[in-house]
Amino acid sequence: MATHRFDPDFTDNVVNAMGPKTNPRFRQLMTSLIRHVHDFARENEVTVDEWMAGVQLMNWAGQMSNDKRNEGQLVCDVIGLESLVDEITFKLAEEADDAPTATAILGPFFRADTPYRKNGDNIVKGVPDGEMAFMHGRVIDFTTKKPLVGATVEVWQAATNGLYEQQDPNQEEFNLRGKFKTDEEGRYYFYCLRPTPYPVPDDGPAGKLLKLMDRHPFRPAHIHIIATHDGYKPLTTQIFDRKDQYLTNDSVFAVKDSLIVDFVPREGDSQAGLELNYDVKLVPAQSSSTNGV
Amino acid sequence: MATHRFDPDFTDNVVNAMGPKTNPRFRQLMTSLIRHVHDFARENEVTVDEWMAGVQLMNWAGQMSNDKRNEGQLVCDVIGLESLVDEITFKLAEEADDAPTATAILGPFFRADTPYRKNGDNIVKGVPDGEMAFMHGRVIDFTTKKPLVGATVEVWQAATNGLYEQQDPNQEEFNLRGKFKTDEEGRYYFYCLRPTPYPVPDDGPAGKLLKLMDRHPFRPAHIHIIATHDGYKPLTTQIFDRKDQYLTNDSVFAVKDSLIVDFVPREGDSQAGLELNYDVKLVPAQSSSTNGV
Repeated sequence: MATHRFDPDFTDNVVNAMGPKTNPRFRQLMTSLIRHVHDFARENEVTVDEWMAGVQLMNWAGQMSNDKRNEGQLVCDVIGLESLVDEITFKLAEEADDAPTATAILGPFFRADTPYRKNGDNIVKGVPDGEMAFMHGRVIDFTTKKPLVGATVEVWQAATNGLYEQQDPNQEEFNLRGKFKTDEEGRYYFYCLRPTPYPVPDDGPAGKLLKLMDRHPFRPAHIHIIATHDGYKPLTTQIFDRKDQYLTNDSVFAVKDSLIVDFVPREGDSQAGLELNYDVKLVPAQSSSTNGV
Repeated sequence: MATHRFDPDFTDNVVNAMGPKTNPRFRQLMTSLIRHVHDFARENEVTVDEWMAGVQLMNWAGQMSNDKRNEGQLVCDVIGLESLVDEITFKLAEEADDAPTATAILGPFFRADTPYRKNGDNIVKGVPDGEMAFMHGRVIDFTTKKPLVGATVEVWQAATNGLYEQQDPNQEEFNLRGKFKTDEEGRYYFYCLRPTPYPVPDDGPAGKLLKLMDRHPFRPAHIHIIATHDGYKPLTTQIFDRKDQYLTNDSVFAVKDSLIVDFVPREGDSQAGLELNYDVKLVPAQSSSTNGV
């Protein structure tokens, strides 16, 4: 911390106010947070008006958040924080063995109450207005490569208008999302849309920050995936279409090379002109490694 | 920033995503904020679960905030941020001349719609359950010491149960708050309670943070003041009772020595057994200095 002309004891006083019963990890986090926040204020000589604008933005994020939307999370996303803690968490889990592939952020549009569907179902409810794709693959043990029977693969994607179903009163509930159980050969398969790029919602503080930072709000086309199976570490990831124009400048900084996939032409299927073959690899829970894609 | 094992380009990528039309001051603030937030995450290897707990706390603060309560502000207050930006703002304004006295934080219980009352009124509505005090003084020009006629002095204080009126359905609206105009001699005067210490609200994220930090929630006894007059810089401050037990460990770190005052016995007034004489000094708006108390 650079020298400054403010009360040199102030930050220590705030940190040292923590009592002896503070949890050690919490003490570490709060000590560091208080020092960084105070340094930020001093280094930039943040004024009361600037700080109050930040408080109002923070409150606004909470006020827009509910069980269908998490704007506080989106604010963190546009400054890269969710992708960074994802990288950190993944690296911590990775320390020991296996070198599994990357995870990715959950994003603010996950819904805990997504229903199960049957393999072969179409998650597009209503008239599809985009390119249909057949997505299929297996869930396998990352180490043994054996298929996992009865694993759950949950997916969600935005509509071509850029909105997830919970953002859009014109979409059927749970449109473009579903959970699938792998069959006796560890396979899952369903019809979906080829994903399209879309802007993150710009009607709240995250959108306001993006405008003020003179940045576009677009996310490259992607499909969210969560895969789980008893005895394995749950995996949260996103896969990105290699042809997307926003691959190199995702508004939430979530793209990793290993998560880029190819949609290829599909022959002889009246339901879909494209297909995507994607195997999900899970790491046993007793392993010190995290999940592999 | 210490060396670390995470993507060394990540933070630069996020900072450099800002476009050319970004306001220069906003670019400075966001660059510094992004670097500090990312450093905080890396230095402590913050996990997804820890970060999500922070997001939920932030959203919770917004959800509790409305026109009567600002919980985001209170969260900042308990980590000393409002007092620090007050110090910074005051120091910036102070740079040139006059060496005026300290300001203090606004706090989350200010109400913009507080009514005017007449000098001599009692701001205690209902039966007083504390020590009554007669507060009086003048508003004067900091430089010339001349009294300012028609200046506004706005005050607010908590009840002895520790609650401001907007927190307490049992208090009359605008109890213990009021605006006063100075008379032809620049004087204001009214009856109030000797202030008592109280805990900041502990039913939200600020209270949760205090508990987790093993800290008490008490603020030393104080009266909030805002003074304004055409052609003068507005002053926001608090005055603290010298006899209070929490003077040295205010839960929001707002006490400054120059803001400590003495209540003294008052003779021959059936309405109050104590009095406080307090002159408010305002700095002309054209001055480069801030307000003096």
